[in-house]
Amino acid sequence: MSLPSHVVRSFVDACGKGSVLSDPGECWTYGFDNSRQHACPDLVVLPQDSEQIQACVRLCRQFHVPLTTRGRGTNTTGAAVPLRSGIVLSTERMARILEMDAANRSMRVEPGVLNSAVQEQASEYGLFWPPDPGSADYCTVGGNLACNAAGPRALKYGTCRENTLEVLAVTGTGNMIRTGSATTKGVVGLDLTRLLIGSEGILAVITEARLKLSAAAERTDTIRASYIDTQSAIDAVVCILAQSALPCALEFIDEGSLNLIRTQEAIALDSDAKAMLIIEVDGLMQTVDANVAAVLKAAKNPGCVDLLNASEPRHREELWQARKVLSQALRGFAPSKINEDVVVPVSRLPTLLQELELLAQKFSIPIFNFGHAGNGNIHVNLLYDESDSQQAKSARHCLNEVFDLVLKLDGSLSGEHGVGISKRNWVDRELGPEVLGLMHQIKQQFDPDNILNPDKVLPDLTAS
Amino acid sequence: MSLPSHVVRSFVDACGKGSVLSDPGECWTYGFDNSRQHACPDLVVLPQDSEQIQACVRLCRQFHVPLTTRGRGTNTTGAAVPLRSGIVLSTERMARILEMDAANRSMRVEPGVLNSAVQEQASEYGLFWPPDPGSADYCTVGGNLACNAAGPRALKYGTCRENTLEVLAVTGTGNMIRTGSATTKGVVGLDLTRLLIGSEGILAVITEARLKLSAAAERTDTIRASYIDTQSAIDAVVCILAQSALPCALEFIDEGSLNLIRTQEAIALDSDAKAMLIIEVDGLMQTVDANVAAVLKAAKNPGCVDLLNASEPRHREELWQARKVLSQALRGFAPSKINEDVVVPVSRLPTLLQELELLAQKFSIPIFNFGHAGNGNIHVNLLYDESDSQQAKSARHCLNEVFDLVLKLDGSLSGEHGVGISKRNWVDRELGPEVLGLMHQIKQQFDPDNILNPDKVLPDLTAS
Repeated sequence: MSLPSHVVRSFVDACGKGSVLSDPGECWTYGFDNSRQHACPDLVVLPQDSEQIQACVRLCRQFHVPLTTRGRGTNTTGAAVPLRSGIVLSTERMARILEMDAANRSMRVEPGVLNSAVQEQASEYGLFWPPDPGSADYCTVGGNLACNAAGPRALKYGTCRENTLEVLAVTGTGNMIRTGSATTKGVVGLDLTRLLIGSEGILAVITEARLKLSAAAERTDTIRASYIDTQSAIDAVVCILAQSALPCALEFIDEGSLNLIRTQEAIALDSDAKAMLIIEVDGLMQTVDANVAAVLKAAKNPGCVDLLNASEPRHREELWQARKVLSQALRGFAPSKINEDVVVPVSRLPTLLQELELLAQKFSIPIFNFGHAGNGNIHVNLLYDESDSQQAKSARHCLNEVFDLVLKLDGSLSGEHGVGISKRNWVDRELGPEVLGLMHQIKQQFDPDNILNPDKVLPDLTAS
Repeated sequence: MSLPSHVVRSFVDACGKGSVLSDPGECWTYGFDNSRQHACPDLVVLPQDSEQIQACVRLCRQFHVPLTTRGRGTNTTGAAVPLRSGIVLSTERMARILEMDAANRSMRVEPGVLNSAVQEQASEYGLFWPPDPGSADYCTVGGNLACNAAGPRALKYGTCRENTLEVLAVTGTGNMIRTGSATTKGVVGLDLTRLLIGSEGILAVITEARLKLSAAAERTDTIRASYIDTQSAIDAVVCILAQSALPCALEFIDEGSLNLIRTQEAIALDSDAKAMLIIEVDGLMQTVDANVAAVLKAAKNPGCVDLLNASEPRHREELWQARKVLSQALRGFAPSKINEDVVVPVSRLPTLLQELELLAQKFSIPIFNFGHAGNGNIHVNLLYDESDSQQAKSARHCLNEVFDLVLKLDGSLSGEHGVGISKRNWVDRELGPEVLGLMHQIKQQFDPDNILNPDKVLPDLTAS
């Protein structure tokens, strides 16, 4: 389906000729995201300010054309894929830092600015913005906010929801709204800021945000701890979280992943190690030693077989080497990968990992697990060959049981990736019909004509 | 207006005879809150579990009777006053801690549990719940959540919104919903947890919550810093926040308040001191010294005339003595007090305080200011005699200009007290009509018959 010429002309009038792409070849590349799903948009618009975004939303509403907002497409769930074609609104030409307010530890930005550009600017003032997804170098703040992106640092410093003061956005009605305030506290009216953050573009298009920055630590040390089994590693996690030197990262690698690392490169891993923690501890120059000592004390239990720590950048990198090699190794292991990011209460991690092992055996699908243990947020990687239809089917059945398992353990289907298309059909297992009903009503009032990222996040309501 | 006997009987049937108070004398005491406003409810119900709450909400809906939920009435804005009479639902008999989950640093509680009871239970495991309103000894967690309560510690540890994992609530439709999850991260669906927190009982009645606990610091030191003027004090605040040893409290006292303290008791204050900071720094036993040194270095500027710090409880109390004496002194200064809690970006505090001084002169209303400087959240106290009608009128006019001033400085009308009745008529100066429209629609969908705490928080929509 292509758009009638008068519709295309309206977008050209709104944004300027050079800001509208209609060539199918050009449009094609805006139809992917990192989920590898694809749908080709009819038109790509590249607005340059809030008013152009507002004009685009109003046109979409007027012509009943779906609109999918896109940062750099690093999303892993299809949230940026224009399922029903229509317009892709790319924020790539809105990448300015509008105001750096060091005294108030805040930065006002356009949605298309890269996470790394924010960090670079903030670092000039000894500040940083906590959300640190793995894709920080090439993902946008707008995308981060849409998905409530996080990363290892969330353990100590929070996610986007804890680190955003104010949002400007255009709702599906075409209205421009400002939520939150320039202050770090505020309780006037309902919290629409957090409602927009993590809503994956189904309620509004974010046109500007005021980010809450934090003072950067003076120094960060790295600890690598290896354990004879998962239970010992998670016991250590619980002990580390029970004392007050809260690490800024507390990452886990499971036995299968360690074995994979061993096959790849000559990294010195203790032969008894069947679970590993990589921990980052930050603070002042003079306090990190004491913080590290407190964490080491908590990390050391009878199942701990290896405990290393490092301050020097080169030595810290060596400790992270296992984790880095793992990503390369996984890429080589199987052509296809389902990378989930389920989350359970921390103390349930041993049960989760034990049962995942049983599922791997049951479906003959290798599963490798690692991730943010401090938040109970584990990246569950199902590796298979998509071209082998039997295996692909098994992988999907296995995934289905992974989700059931997570919910049985009081967990959630996603800790940081979100729902998009990929997990939409499972959402009603986690959320009750009343809650889903309320979410649908909120969607309906923000976007009465359902033009913003339709068929994402919320499953259709079944008659009941 | 009293309720028909069959209506009263229905509540008795739902909750039991001993859980319904209909005697006007008994009802009377449930009509106040700490705003000193009053309206007598027709009936007080004291439910004992979630199901009884649900039954009460359903009855209110069935009989079109307003319902106002009440913790211990420590609210300062009238949010707990049953403006339109009807039912007051007191959570006083739902004060159980349902589950202490130390391994996952969480606690599941009923809404009527006191904040201090939560702290006491948590402290047995070396944990605490960050929200620390001044009324912690006699305010409920349900009330804390309804108002998104905070306190000095919010600077480092956040408010209720950052420290609540999961909420069970009954909406105005009588549906029981569960929002959030037992995990510390989660991005499945829209963030209804934060939407309920701070909604002051207009969307739903919270029946249970899972609180996010943090590990308690091993040690806390206190610093008292005095300055020759406000600008120097706030310059110090900005410098303190720019380095990474974030204090767990960063309180401010203005010149007028210091003068009041001087008239009251023989507290040794430097005669040049015209602004004061009281700072708390926490950490491990071995790290607090370094953290204190970093904060002292940031606090010391050319305008600093006195800088004391203390580790011993007795000496720390001495440093806090100025603040404690102030509260007593204010009570004696004038019979009536408007205690606001406006918030501005930290760097705007000197302008705010300067202009407040001009307003005090203009209206001949003494204004004393102190509060949470680290968040820019200042308690502005207008002191006057309510029985002097001219002065009372001046105070209200003055307050009006205080709010205009705050908004001019990019601030917000309330940092932690909320809106209730008291600030309802000013909300539309801060929030635009589109935002208010969305909030009204959300209220409408959670509570279509407008039975939950009607006429609070959101101003009526004017025809436009």
